[in-house]
Amino acid sequence: MEVVLGIDIGGTFSKFGLVDRTGWIHFENEIPTPERGSIEQFIETIHEHLLLSLEQLDRSFKIMGIGVGAPNGNYYSGSIENAPNLAWKGKIEFVKLMEAQFHLPTVVTNDANAAALGEMLFGDAAGLNDFIMITLGTGLGSGLVVNGDIVYGHDGFAGELGHVLAVDNGRQCGCGKRGCLEAYVSATGIKRTIFELLAEESVESEFRNISFTKLEPRMITSMAESGDPIAVKAFERTGFLLGRSLADSVAHVSPAKIFLFGGLAKAGKWIIEPTKKSMESHLLPIYRDKIDIVPSALLDRNIAVLGAAALIWRRLNR
Amino acid sequence: MEVVLGIDIGGTFSKFGLVDRTGWIHFENEIPTPERGSIEQFIETIHEHLLLSLEQLDRSFKIMGIGVGAPNGNYYSGSIENAPNLAWKGKIEFVKLMEAQFHLPTVVTNDANAAALGEMLFGDAAGLNDFIMITLGTGLGSGLVVNGDIVYGHDGFAGELGHVLAVDNGRQCGCGKRGCLEAYVSATGIKRTIFELLAEESVESEFRNISFTKLEPRMITSMAESGDPIAVKAFERTGFLLGRSLADSVAHVSPAKIFLFGGLAKAGKWIIEPTKKSMESHLLPIYRDKIDIVPSALLDRNIAVLGAAALIWRRLNR
Repeated sequence: MEVVLGIDIGGTFSKFGLVDRTGWIHFENEIPTPERGSIEQFIETIHEHLLLSLEQLDRSFKIMGIGVGAPNGNYYSGSIENAPNLAWKGKIEFVKLMEAQFHLPTVVTNDANAAALGEMLFGDAAGLNDFIMITLGTGLGSGLVVNGDIVYGHDGFAGELGHVLAVDNGRQCGCGKRGCLEAYVSATGIKRTIFELLAEESVESEFRNISFTKLEPRMITSMAESGDPIAVKAFERTGFLLGRSLADSVAHVSPAKIFLFGGLAKAGKWIIEPTKKSMESHLLPIYRDKIDIVPSALLDRNIAVLGAAALIWRRLNR
Repeated sequence: MEVVLGIDIGGTFSKFGLVDRTGWIHFENEIPTPERGSIEQFIETIHEHLLLSLEQLDRSFKIMGIGVGAPNGNYYSGSIENAPNLAWKGKIEFVKLMEAQFHLPTVVTNDANAAALGEMLFGDAAGLNDFIMITLGTGLGSGLVVNGDIVYGHDGFAGELGHVLAVDNGRQCGCGKRGCLEAYVSATGIKRTIFELLAEESVESEFRNISFTKLEPRMITSMAESGDPIAVKAFERTGFLLGRSLADSVAHVSPAKIFLFGGLAKAGKWIIEPTKKSMESHLLPIYRDKIDIVPSALLDRNIAVLGAAALIWRRLNR
């Protein structure tokens, strides 16, 4: 059976799986992304894990290629450049090293672009020529699709909506700037908003008994569901800023749909309703009432591995 | 000789010309855009003018098609929808009416998209797959090019950078929203900034003797050149906001170049230097020091007519 090896390199874990043409994952596994050591060692480790797994599987697979989603992965150059959450610094010639190890055609892009491709091939974006994928994890990633293709930009680095200006002179962002969208709209961002609200408001809240370190983003959804006013207001404030920024994104590329993926997207109506309301109120009249904001169809699946594999499948299907 | 009829419908004047494959305009003319009357009458008037002119020209032309740039012109539907500065309201089936009158293949898009195509075929954007055209007239228009194609979006209305949020709860914009970029960065926008500065500062300035109505935007450049502090500061403030917004546009589509066209672009270094400085300071590190902001190569030519013609030439050249 023909499959593609999809690899998602994250700051903490790296996941990989064998994905067939229909988006079925025949096998998946994950290993910790090393905090030290060389990139060559890491690539060898993945190779060993893959060979071991292939031996244990009871059918034979023909691997057609390798698609990789990685932070700062550059589709054009095949490199991973200065990814803030990875141990390997500088410009890594990732595709070159992979092809030397695996002897298979390899393509890399960033994780959010991979997610957009995953939605296009295996999710709800089939047939959509213009859409945006927003991935809400520790940070905020984005993949833009225009005229049926991923927007890579002249240098391969397009689609960093996490770092558009959301609040003038606002919160400090990991990138060194202030007021970036991801400092507000992300797992970390909404945590910061909870603590901002605890300072601003005097209302009772379960959050008053939890330290910043102990607060898990998914607690916020369950607290909103049990009526905690700080949780509800945190979603409103987060959705307001996300919707306002998305209105600007619409003015750029006018997408038919906007997909949300990641932990915060699992909050469902809590995040989607205030986002939609705010986006509509900030849109030019010509754009109103025709753009959907929806959770990704792959919300409970490994979109990054699927999307990484989609990089290769898309090329083979053409 | 094979030519294309390029038409640029503006709020005050409509220009048209016969453009050959190399971008040479063999003939051009303009008529006032009517403030009343039907669209059918207007199309007839253009047709009559064209026939009259063709009779007077001393060589024969074969018109291959008609390209039209018009406010709210929709490439997909061929319509002009609710253009705020035109007399014809609602949704006009413009292409249908044109083809009935001229019996020639007709394509319409908005004026800024046409300008981007003009730069691509006849200006300095030849060979660029990713760039942005900003047209600074009464308002601020934009044409985005990604992967070598104009970004039309799912509905044909993409690229309205004049209406991204530039200042939270800022100036009233003609679109009904507040704080839009074009309320600051446009011929009208910089005039408003001059008067804002006259209120804020106590410094001497020639502008203190000129009424809002009498102030012509091009005076601002000549006053800056003669050292008027209000003029210089108005350009700095305008460039700061344009540059900050462009940094967000870069985070969307990562263009190789950004072209400026229109009256304000003719201010040259006065507008380009503060824009570039502000954009760089608001960019993510990965984007820094590699994006040019330059005046359009067609600054003194009729870019809208050239661009409108380019709509057809591009199709024929493929």
